[in-house]
Amino acid sequence: MRWTEFLLPTLKEIPSEAEAISHILMIRAGLIRRLTSGVYSYLPLGLRVLKKVEKIIRQEMDSKQAQEVLLPAIQPIELWIKSGRFAALGEDMITFTDRHKKVNVLGPTHEEVITALVKNEVNSYRQLPLILYQIQTKFRDEARPRFGVMRSREFIMKDAYSFDCDGEGLNTSYNKMYQAYCRIFKRCGLNFIAVEADTGIMGGDVSHEFMVLAENGEDMVVICENCKYAVSMDKAECVKPVTRGQEPVARKMEEVKTPGVSSVEDVARFLKVGAEQLVKTLIYIADDKPVAVLVRGDHEINETKLNRLLKAGSLSMADEETIQKVTGGPLGFSGPVGLSGLKIIADLGIAASSNFVVGANKSDVHFVGVNIERDFKVWQWADVRNIMDKDICPKCMQPIKIEQAIEVGHVFKLGTKYTENLNATFLDEQGKAKKIIMGCYGIGVTRLIAACIEQNCDKNGIIWPKEIAPFQVILMPLNTAHVLSMDFARTIYGHLTERNIEVLLDDRDIRAGIKFKDADLIGIPLQIIIGEKNLEQNRIEIKERMTGQRYIIALDEALKKTIELLKIPG
Amino acid sequence: MRWTEFLLPTLKEIPSEAEAISHILMIRAGLIRRLTSGVYSYLPLGLRVLKKVEKIIRQEMDSKQAQEVLLPAIQPIELWIKSGRFAALGEDMITFTDRHKKVNVLGPTHEEVITALVKNEVNSYRQLPLILYQIQTKFRDEARPRFGVMRSREFIMKDAYSFDCDGEGLNTSYNKMYQAYCRIFKRCGLNFIAVEADTGIMGGDVSHEFMVLAENGEDMVVICENCKYAVSMDKAECVKPVTRGQEPVARKMEEVKTPGVSSVEDVARFLKVGAEQLVKTLIYIADDKPVAVLVRGDHEINETKLNRLLKAGSLSMADEETIQKVTGGPLGFSGPVGLSGLKIIADLGIAASSNFVVGANKSDVHFVGVNIERDFKVWQWADVRNIMDKDICPKCMQPIKIEQAIEVGHVFKLGTKYTENLNATFLDEQGKAKKIIMGCYGIGVTRLIAACIEQNCDKNGIIWPKEIAPFQVILMPLNTAHVLSMDFARTIYGHLTERNIEVLLDDRDIRAGIKFKDADLIGIPLQIIIGEKNLEQNRIEIKERMTGQRYIIALDEALKKTIELLKIPG
Repeated sequence: MRWTEFLLPTLKEIPSEAEAISHILMIRAGLIRRLTSGVYSYLPLGLRVLKKVEKIIRQEMDSKQAQEVLLPAIQPIELWIKSGRFAALGEDMITFTDRHKKVNVLGPTHEEVITALVKNEVNSYRQLPLILYQIQTKFRDEARPRFGVMRSREFIMKDAYSFDCDGEGLNTSYNKMYQAYCRIFKRCGLNFIAVEADTGIMGGDVSHEFMVLAENGEDMVVICENCKYAVSMDKAECVKPVTRGQEPVARKMEEVKTPGVSSVEDVARFLKVGAEQLVKTLIYIADDKPVAVLVRGDHEINETKLNRLLKAGSLSMADEETIQKVTGGPLGFSGPVGLSGLKIIADLGIAASSNFVVGANKSDVHFVGVNIERDFKVWQWADVRNIMDKDICPKCMQPIKIEQAIEVGHVFKLGTKYTENLNATFLDEQGKAKKIIMGCYGIGVTRLIAACIEQNCDKNGIIWPKEIAPFQVILMPLNTAHVLSMDFARTIYGHLTERNIEVLLDDRDIRAGIKFKDADLIGIPLQIIIGEKNLEQNRIEIKERMTGQRYIIALDEALKKTIELLKIPG
Repeated sequence: MRWTEFLLPTLKEIPSEAEAISHILMIRAGLIRRLTSGVYSYLPLGLRVLKKVEKIIRQEMDSKQAQEVLLPAIQPIELWIKSGRFAALGEDMITFTDRHKKVNVLGPTHEEVITALVKNEVNSYRQLPLILYQIQTKFRDEARPRFGVMRSREFIMKDAYSFDCDGEGLNTSYNKMYQAYCRIFKRCGLNFIAVEADTGIMGGDVSHEFMVLAENGEDMVVICENCKYAVSMDKAECVKPVTRGQEPVARKMEEVKTPGVSSVEDVARFLKVGAEQLVKTLIYIADDKPVAVLVRGDHEINETKLNRLLKAGSLSMADEETIQKVTGGPLGFSGPVGLSGLKIIADLGIAASSNFVVGANKSDVHFVGVNIERDFKVWQWADVRNIMDKDICPKCMQPIKIEQAIEVGHVFKLGTKYTENLNATFLDEQGKAKKIIMGCYGIGVTRLIAACIEQNCDKNGIIWPKEIAPFQVILMPLNTAHVLSMDFARTIYGHLTERNIEVLLDDRDIRAGIKFKDADLIGIPLQIIIGEKNLEQNRIEIKERMTGQRYIIALDEALKKTIELLKIPG
């Protein structure tokens, strides 16, 4: 490909719309352009990368006997009502009313559609196991689309669905997909970890997220460097603290005035105690009923954990008015003492706490010297808080750390959640109808590219892993008016393309400095630099983008060396 | 691929939802399944065909230096308002309001988006010519989705856009695409013709449709078998009739009672004259103003032609009330005599008519013996009717014929319609800003597959052209319990797949009769039939799906013969 005939508009300046490094580089390197909020066009260079990733995914899916299909974006809303997920997706779901006044959904995912399809086409155990996948465009009306293709409203996903007779079959399918995912991410040059994860609105019981550690990651993962355990925040078990040494003496509970002081930080400072000496009382509304949730002052509630306990259809924090009604006091001064008519859930993190500070359900008043059992009763103990950096690992009891990450894949053992609601059964060997057992497996294809760039870049630009680089070689005749330079460029271009090596020939009549900068920016693994002076001495220069290593090579060795550096035999 | 591990559900019965033969066969052969009105899922076999077609398209586009991009489905409505096409698309356009209350369009096509993109990225003549294309999903809320993927609400299109400095450049780009289209359709096994066509809401001045002749085609094409001229109905010029021989004597105009008789057929029968002796008067509303249009009783108005003349933003037939107001008479009795306050447009088809019958603008009354000029004045003569079978060819004056056809591609010289409205300019060699000259080029990829089946099938099923067949060979061991049959099947399967020949192994434990029927239904070019009796005599049978020709072949010749029949060297 000749650059002058290729739509590859690089930018020197950092685009104002972009924050994340991958987003900046994808725009600067001419991979994508924004059309509207959270919606991007792929330019030719970006599409080349996208296709390489898709090819890797197809190869790995096919190698696990997964079969490719293509399902529609337009879906009837009835399917979502049947599955019970219409409400769960809320405003993220894009819907439109057609000319016949029917409401349609633009598929954010395809569990419903594939289950409806398989329900009609599969009826015997002989047709199972079955894994179907597609690479297809999804639509989600994200509240805050950002970081370019990392969180966008229209994106490409690889979604796979497995169908099995029983739990053992599901385990086999799940493991196949898990292995395929590891190979896909590795081939795409990603440094990733698989973490145990919550199943969320997908349903089912077992799930793993594939996480790429990156500064701009919107997710947090919990990692134990000692035992290598990795888990998502929502799934990470917080170990119940134990009282060490002597039981503390229970002090007398007393009211203290805390005028205008209600936040944890302010109360702790005012009373000259650590935040861990406070217990926060938060009022939630779970399916229209209030509950009080207690966590230590320095801890944060994890609502996913809380709702795993409550199993509520809807869960939200109470508003000021409700708090006043339920506790008798204003927002910011809630506490468990004297609270009645609602359940009190205590996070395990306060199990070893004593003589602590709580709100008094009165304006500008707190209690100090509060103790559980003596001063109030707990309805249920549970782990409902976020794990924190340096908390201890539930597996090996060493300190964990928390890192930012980008979720690039997610696998779920769904079980019968969808086949139950949509009544998808098969006849087993005995002729008995049973629900099909499902798994589902997703990769954010466009997000994967952004994640890859986050991990594979430097201050000068992108450093593409070889297997997904848009070209393997960029040829840079520094002076395109110099006949010998262009002759050599054309010759080696021919030799390389004959060997199926993809070459971009920078034949632009511009300053060498811009060529160097652009080559680093777009990140093609090998740069072959053809300069007049080197050429006079029958040599050229090869630069490896990843290492920065430069080689001065005799002309008649150039082809061999290039192939060697690309690690292609012959 | 083994059939028992492949989701390929064939159907014996004709599905009730399907009328067109291609639709019936696509469902029966397990290529597609309907999800909702005009929306289809591609099963693995269907997707294999789709990908083959896409591969051919990419090869031919790339060979013309067209560059592939990927544009979003979600588009801001503002672009469509700027281009002036929002109203033109009407109810076909799918829109949705997002969570931020912004209205978005689901792209029915991408002229606006690509023009906006190129406007930002191209600014110099040095960057032109440029051809960009994509293979992407389009959305149109068809009033009557039908014939499966032939007219659906979600479909895959290849759309290409050319950008040039001047008209000469546009001609070059247009010819490149025209040639690529011919190659694509030929490689897909289509018998097609390119017809001169109207540009419609796309705009521009020159356009060709690529038409596949087929009984279930929704379009009509005009073909001259004598001079090979082919043209669309909207573009076909009707030759003005000439009076032959002596001028007819003008008779006296008279009122006749035609009680309850208003249709052309009824009036002609009642008055015992031919339909061609009547002149119909139709009242249209063009941009809120009424016009009367006269055509011969046996002719039909072509509204596209009419509006090429009127250039109205909106054009529709007047309702009963308006007709009463404008003509003074009821619907069905309109006529040009005494009509005032509106323009009278006469189709050229009545230029040689005399002493004809028209409505009298009174209930149950017609005039007979009417003559132009004497009895009423024509404001403008024009060709505004549909050409009919046996009308004469405007090129060679021989009779034309009209055939049903499926439009699979359409190419347009757009000129500056979009670059003008969206202000996309470039600087020419003199540094002067000029509007970019555009062309656009579309292929209905999913429709192409249906069209291909319409032309390539028999009563038993599909007959795939080799280059887009989902597999090249189907291996049919008739008795899967017979060890030697399965052994031979596996051996030849290995040999063929080693040579990159795609093979489907029908390893289902079912009756031979069903295997034969299914093999013919799914239409794979070569059937290798492995029967016990033949095998005992060291031979197998090969059947060509297209010709029905059968070959009995010695085992050790089987591979060679298969390759020879597939016309693959070696």
